[in-house]
Amino acid sequence: MLYYSPSIEKLVEAFEKLPSIGHKTAVRLAFHMLDLSKEETDEFVNAIINAKNNLKYCSKCYNISDTDPCSICANPKRDESVICVVEDVKDIIAMEKTHEFKGVYHVLHGSISPMNGIGPDDIKLKELLARLNPEIVKELILATNPRVEGEATAMYISKLVKPLGIKVTRIAHGIPVGGDLEYTDEVTLTKALEGRREM
Amino acid sequence: MLYYSPSIEKLVEAFEKLPSIGHKTAVRLAFHMLDLSKEETDEFVNAIINAKNNLKYCSKCYNISDTDPCSICANPKRDESVICVVEDVKDIIAMEKTHEFKGVYHVLHGSISPMNGIGPDDIKLKELLARLNPEIVKELILATNPRVEGEATAMYISKLVKPLGIKVTRIAHGIPVGGDLEYTDEVTLTKALEGRREM
Repeated sequence: MLYYSPSIEKLVEAFEKLPSIGHKTAVRLAFHMLDLSKEETDEFVNAIINAKNNLKYCSKCYNISDTDPCSICANPKRDESVICVVEDVKDIIAMEKTHEFKGVYHVLHGSISPMNGIGPDDIKLKELLARLNPEIVKELILATNPRVEGEATAMYISKLVKPLGIKVTRIAHGIPVGGDLEYTDEVTLTKALEGRREM
Repeated sequence: MLYYSPSIEKLVEAFEKLPSIGHKTAVRLAFHMLDLSKEETDEFVNAIINAKNNLKYCSKCYNISDTDPCSICANPKRDESVICVVEDVKDIIAMEKTHEFKGVYHVLHGSISPMNGIGPDDIKLKELLARLNPEIVKELILATNPRVEGEATAMYISKLVKPLGIKVTRIAHGIPVGGDLEYTDEVTLTKALEGRREM
């Protein structure tokens, strides 16, 4: 039986399709939308439409951006000799928040995962290799996620790139700052031991 | 510093304005939107636009509906002699889910709350009184929320309507089904005692 009027029902369904939104939240969001003024609704809808229309891949690093090249690639202060390879656009944000990295990025848009049928050709790997001019690029930092797929991808890229004479590094694994030895899993602890440095 | 491209930033902000959506969820939703196909995005956006354009108040009961009168008021099987007064459109859904109530509704769109500057004229009370033809309406069920404002509103309406010779009832307060005496607050327990019935 239909409890809501059809337009409300459709709105609830639209919100329910979003990730991490359950039925009750979808109902709350739908009624919140109905309470908004015409201007507020337009603002929300236009944010979506503009994002879909304006955003494109940066043709250099495959970041998602309003401009091509993206603001990082277009910034003359960024060091083009160091490329940090990440799986996802969101990983760039995480890196940028450290304020430590001054190089440029390359977004793979995924990781090699034979289990899920994702091979080297399904991620932006050809595009990475095309950028690797040894006269310009001195170091490739592999910052794929420390999971099976990320490790395999890093390994794969490393094998391809090393023969070019470019230094290939992998971000360090270890105990997170503020973490607790007692609650650290064995794999992380093993990596932390392996990566120990003299003080 | 701006980490996201402006269009992404605006999309994240749009989602952050929604109730119960924090920054991290807003980012997840924004990137989910970017991943959607043109058709899926249109479907989402149109659900919002259509809801805003099509929905109106039912001129009888002030339910929100695609049609005027709403499907409940337009249903000849509903008993017009019993009106259930609720604070909010969502309360109608809660009542309808019981499948027990066969009368019609009246949505007040709020409750009297002097603390928040909401007086009798700020809710759909005049509109309720205008409906109360004693030749048709035999009972008014006050189903406002069992909170201070809801109780005050019920009391206020009751005093206005009783002189018209219409039976005015209040939904029962008590221990929820499946509830536990041990964990029931004193006020509810007092109400449950007061409302005791012979078996």
